[in-house]
Amino acid sequence: MTPTPPLILVTNDDGITAPGIRALIRVMNEIGTVVVVAPDKPQSAMGHAITIHDALYCDPVVVDKDAVQKEYSCSGTPVDCVKIAARQILGRKPDLCVSGINHGSNSAINVMYSGTMSAAIEAGIQGVPAIGFSLLDYGMDADFEPSLPYIRAIVAQVLAHGLPKGVVLNVNIPKLVHSEIKGMKICRQANAHWLEDFNERKNPMGKTYYWLTGTFVNEDKGEDTDEWALQNGYVSIVPTQFDLTAHHALQELNSWDFEGGEREC
Amino acid sequence: MTPTPPLILVTNDDGITAPGIRALIRVMNEIGTVVVVAPDKPQSAMGHAITIHDALYCDPVVVDKDAVQKEYSCSGTPVDCVKIAARQILGRKPDLCVSGINHGSNSAINVMYSGTMSAAIEAGIQGVPAIGFSLLDYGMDADFEPSLPYIRAIVAQVLAHGLPKGVVLNVNIPKLVHSEIKGMKICRQANAHWLEDFNERKNPMGKTYYWLTGTFVNEDKGEDTDEWALQNGYVSIVPTQFDLTAHHALQELNSWDFEGGEREC
Repeated sequence: MTPTPPLILVTNDDGITAPGIRALIRVMNEIGTVVVVAPDKPQSAMGHAITIHDALYCDPVVVDKDAVQKEYSCSGTPVDCVKIAARQILGRKPDLCVSGINHGSNSAINVMYSGTMSAAIEAGIQGVPAIGFSLLDYGMDADFEPSLPYIRAIVAQVLAHGLPKGVVLNVNIPKLVHSEIKGMKICRQANAHWLEDFNERKNPMGKTYYWLTGTFVNEDKGEDTDEWALQNGYVSIVPTQFDLTAHHALQELNSWDFEGGEREC
Repeated sequence: MTPTPPLILVTNDDGITAPGIRALIRVMNEIGTVVVVAPDKPQSAMGHAITIHDALYCDPVVVDKDAVQKEYSCSGTPVDCVKIAARQILGRKPDLCVSGINHGSNSAINVMYSGTMSAAIEAGIQGVPAIGFSLLDYGMDADFEPSLPYIRAIVAQVLAHGLPKGVVLNVNIPKLVHSEIKGMKICRQANAHWLEDFNERKNPMGKTYYWLTGTFVNEDKGEDTDEWALQNGYVSIVPTQFDLTAHHALQELNSWDFEGGEREC
């Protein structure tokens, strides 16, 4: 079904020069025709933000000399990158979109805040098979080599099977050497959240400001979650959807007396 | 269960002075003790973005003189507002969080981009019953009065029943006079997307830039969707979740031969 070679859109949220996307581009060049459209600066934690009040720039750039791929640097968010790639840059719908490799985890509730995953989700909304890859190492000197065989394997399966409609993959890779990684597990998103701790300071003019910091709290004891897999040496693969309807709650809500409440008002 | 009067956090994404949030505050003052923590400027389409690379300011402000509610203006995103309210401003977990009234629709896939709904979802992540309200009128002179009886009715039901764990409500209200609104419907999120059309221009230095514009495309013919309800004169109520796991896809993915793919690499 997929033309040979597949057209692969590569993006991320750490910015077009981040080591994680450079590693991902190298692997994708083995597999297909690569076009990179990625943010011109770090865009971590931008979630599914888009740029509607500002102009967007999107310009060809050369990051690696002798590169075979075309690359475009975009002033917007990761989701903007996918939108402008699909409708302005590529000329046709890509066969695959890969986002990352993110410097840091996007497991559990982090999927909501993640620019990396929001880019993959946006590609999924547009009907493009899409995968977000994240390594559990925030360092700019992170070693991406142990991730690469898993990325190759997952991309091969997605190109072979396609993905179910409305589903993209959230892949997280533990910070381990290759021999320590036990394999891959299909998981559900762990039920976890951040407990924020705002760091209060005074600026030089004496005005109070805050830094957002926090502690990750995993309330989920299940052994079928991404958190369990990662803590036990596995690459986690979570099928992720953008139909946010809580279908299981429709029946209960339909038993409520909304109209009675309205009549009383 | 809920203390009397309930502590109600009010936020939005159009900014603390927007007519929509002022209308919502007036209604919430009828129901409980209101604290407003809202963005100091428009933050539409910010999705679930949070501020991690910048300082956050959050200061008491007086928007309405003689107001009974406390109000704080925050330099961050709608999600930042909920986080700083919960952990720095309120002193305890609120009994309810309401977000809006948004100037414009957050139905269907718009839930992903919406700062209004991301604020409600963030409250839900923190275990607070939460509702996002949106009126299908982008005008700053929008008439919020016909929305108010529905907001009262929905809040009354949520305070009476609580909400199922992991579920918040996405409420959209058609742009109609009260007599034309037929009632409320519990709906699923319609399968729809935006078809972007990038408006290309040159800046005064001759450099190309783009404005993100687009057309909303609803592919969903179902009569149980939010889009159907709104187009047929009903207020739509979609139970919305932040477990993005595509549970229905777990079985299929588990049949794939990921490890075989890895061995070949």
